[in-house]
This record gives sequence, structure tokens and C-alpha cells, in this order.
Amino acid sequence: MRNIKLLIEYDGTNFCGWQRQNNGRTIQEEIEKALEKVLKRPVKIHGSGRTDTGVHALGQVASFKANITVPMDKIPLALNSLLPEDISVKGASEVEEDFHARYSAKGKKYIYQIYNGPLRSPLLRNYAYFVAHPLDLNRMQEAAQYFLGSHDFKGFMASGSCVQDTVRTLYKLDVYFHENLIKIEVEGNGFLYNMVRIISGTLVEVGKEKILPTEMQKIIASGIRESAGPTAPAQGLYLAEVFY
Amino acid sequence: MRNIKLLIEYDGTNFCGWQRQNNGRTIQEEIEKALEKVLKRPVKIHGSGRTDTGVHALGQVASFKANITVPMDKIPLALNSLLPEDISVKGASEVEEDFHARYSAKGKKYIYQIYNGPLRSPLLRNYAYFVAHPLDLNRMQEAAQYFLGSHDFKGFMASGSCVQDTVRTLYKLDVYFHENLIKIEVEGNGFLYNMVRIISGTLVEVGKEKILPTEMQKIIASGIRESAGPTAPAQGLYLAEVFY
Repeated sequence: MRNIKLLIEYDGTNFCGWQRQNNGRTIQEEIEKALEKVLKRPVKIHGSGRTDTGVHALGQVASFKANITVPMDKIPLALNSLLPEDISVKGASEVEEDFHARYSAKGKKYIYQIYNGPLRSPLLRNYAYFVAHPLDLNRMQEAAQYFLGSHDFKGFMASGSCVQDTVRTLYKLDVYFHENLIKIEVEGNGFLYNMVRIISGTLVEVGKEKILPTEMQKIIASGIRESAGPTAPAQGLYLAEVFY
Repeated sequence: MRNIKLLIEYDGTNFCGWQRQNNGRTIQEEIEKALEKVLKRPVKIHGSGRTDTGVHALGQVASFKANITVPMDKIPLALNSLLPEDISVKGASEVEEDFHARYSAKGKKYIYQIYNGPLRSPLLRNYAYFVAHPLDLNRMQEAAQYFLGSHDFKGFMASGSCVQDTVRTLYKLDVYFHENLIKIEVEGNGFLYNMVRIISGTLVEVGKEKILPTEMQKIIASGIRESAGPTAPAQGLYLAEVFY
């Protein structure tokens, strides 16, 4: 039995997210179906975490165990020939027996993209959040600093989540212009449900001057979901990298 | 009667090209339908040129005449509220009576995007040409020089076209890496049918070392379509700008 780690890119637009479900096309199901064709038996894969409907991945990681004789460097092409066009396996490697894509993850990097301009961009409609109101990048950058370090991010979690420990550590939260986009790049040891989208939605409120950067500390400390900004839409979010 | 110039961006993926036709969704038809709703009467618009199925535009230009009282700066938002998400009017201005988007055009700029890597990218599948074979950028740049200036581009025109004068002048043909893409940026006083896609397809053959850069001169001079490379696929092509 070998333990295999896959690196996966996908366009989340036409998926009902990562996790297999009864109704709706999911990334997990497509990959499991392709693996079953290669291995001639059902295989269950474990993702580093779920992504929601419309969320993209540049570097999702999944792992599975199988008796597989195909050389590792042949796996991506073999799977891609069976996968739909909106998923691509970008790498495969054999890992230690106890490696698990989710439980072994030490951290993650997400990128959130905002298209800020007076008129919407058709080419970016599925790949960035369109904000027509001019955003003040300096204010967003100032506000971002308050998120760094370890905090109880309870107020930045989708209501209804039932995680016990809501303390997470962010190592990086950069906000910058890149070509015609504002990018929010976040790295941390873990993320609560919708956390990056709520942080992004809150930074957009700061950019619109509806929230002062200096209010961040109080908003985070409050632990109240309603104090933070709205959840920014799914299509701007990319799971960029998983750290092990 | 005012003469109006529109600047238009679109994602060509789900269109059967620019030009109105009986079967199939087109950009021209969508804009004419939106204009009709605003102006309460049918309007015919003239594009700077057609784009094919799957071809995108960052800066397509169209013109039309109408008795319109809406201020110019309100037109983009008014039209966008009626247009589907894959089209956006990015600007509107009043122009001289004799302006015509097609006949007044002095030149155009196109960008052709290639994703060159071992494995396909789902996020770029509709926005770049995926070439797995490693491309030699230096050779492509060397070959590009031969296209500059005035040439009879008969060999770089889709067979079946019935244009009389096939001489065109290219002012610019830059090939460069940008992030994870190879971009081919072309400016000229006019383009034959499929010309940019055939030039791009030929440069890809050069990048694969199937054609020598120094053969370009002979291939162009031959005027034979079969001497040039294949027509690169539509999804890599962007009409970037029209010059007046």
C-alpha cells in the first residue's frame, strides 16, 4: 500500500465545492471517479480542506492510499486524461505512511482577488470580486496589520459553525495592487469556515471608509460576527498553497 | 442624430463571435437588444471588425447613430444593467458624424496568450492556448522580427477568404513572458481573417523548433497558407485596442 499526495488546480466556477455530496458536481467526486478508472477499484481521497461553490484552487492537496504501480511522474497525465477540463492534477508524490492531507497540514495560503473599477469586467466575473466603489488601499493595508498574530477569530467565522477552538494564527496578510487587481494574500496555521472571505469583506468596508482601520482591534476582540464586514463572494477566493 | 462610439470588453467563451447571425448567441445581438431597450427602437451597431467564437475583447469598438438624450457618462451603466455578465460597455463618447467603428479604424492591437507548461491549467482553459511542449522564447522572438513592416500576408490568411488586397503593415510584434504566460502582442494597420492566430500558431512551431526563425522570410514570401503553421485556437486571442 502506498500513500500518495496529489497537488490539484481547479476552476471552482462550475462545481458545488470540493466535498462529495449527493446532489451536485464536486471536485472530490471527479477525482475519485478518475482514480477508480486508473486503479480499477473505488478510492477515497482526503482533501486538505473543503472549498465552497465557486472557490478556486491553485494548490489544493489531497491524499489517498492505494496499491499503485504507476510511476509517480505518470500519474498527473494519466488522471488529467480522465478528468474534466476544469480540474488538473499538477503533481503526485509518494509520502510517509502517516501523511494525511488534512491532519498533517501546518498551514495554508489563500489569495483573495478584487476588481476595483467603475464598470464590471466580463473576463474577471468568475475570478474576482467586483467592487465599483473606489477602495483606499492604504487604509486596507493599515487595517490588515491588526489581524496578524494569534487571535480568537470567532467573529470571522460563518455563523452556524460549531468549531470549539476558534483561535488561529495569521503569519501574513498582505494587501497590494497587482495589474488591475487588488490582491489580499493570507497565510496562517488554519482558517475557520469563511474566515478569509469575512476578512476580505471587512477590508473592503475599510477600503470604502465605512470602517476605520483602528477599529479592527475592537472588532476582532468583540468576537461578534455582526461587527465584522460581510462575507466577500466566493469567486474571488483561491486556495493557493497548503504547507506541511 | 448623434453618433456614438462604445468601448466594449467581453468574454468570448460562450458567444458565437461578434457578428449577429440567425443561430447562436452573438455580442452584436446582445448589445443591439440592450440598446433597443434603452432607445425604444431598433438600432444597428457597427463593430470595428468581427471576432470569432471564443475570441475575447478588452477594447472592441462599436458605433451607432441615434437620437439619444442620455448623457454619455450614464450610457455604460445603463447598458450594463441590461447586458449579460459576459459583456461590459466600458465607455461611451460622442464622435464626429462621419466616424465609423470599422471604416475609420487606422489600426488594431491584439494579444495572444499561451500557457506553456507540462500540465494544463483549468483556470486558463478558456483564456490561453495550452502548449505542453517547451517553447524556446528566444527563437520565437527572433522569428517575430521578420513579420514587422509591410508584407503580403496571403499565406497568413484563412483559406477561403476572398480579400483582394492582402498587404498589411505590422508595427509591433512582441513575444514575452508575463507571469506564467507567453504573450504575443501585435499591432498593425489591419489584419486578414485569422492572421493573428496563424502568426501565433507559426511562432509556436518555431518555439517547438519545428521551423527555424530564419525560414520566416521565405514562408511569408511564399504566400502559401500551408507553409505557415497551424491556426492557434481562438481562446488565446484578445482584441486589445482599436486605433483611430
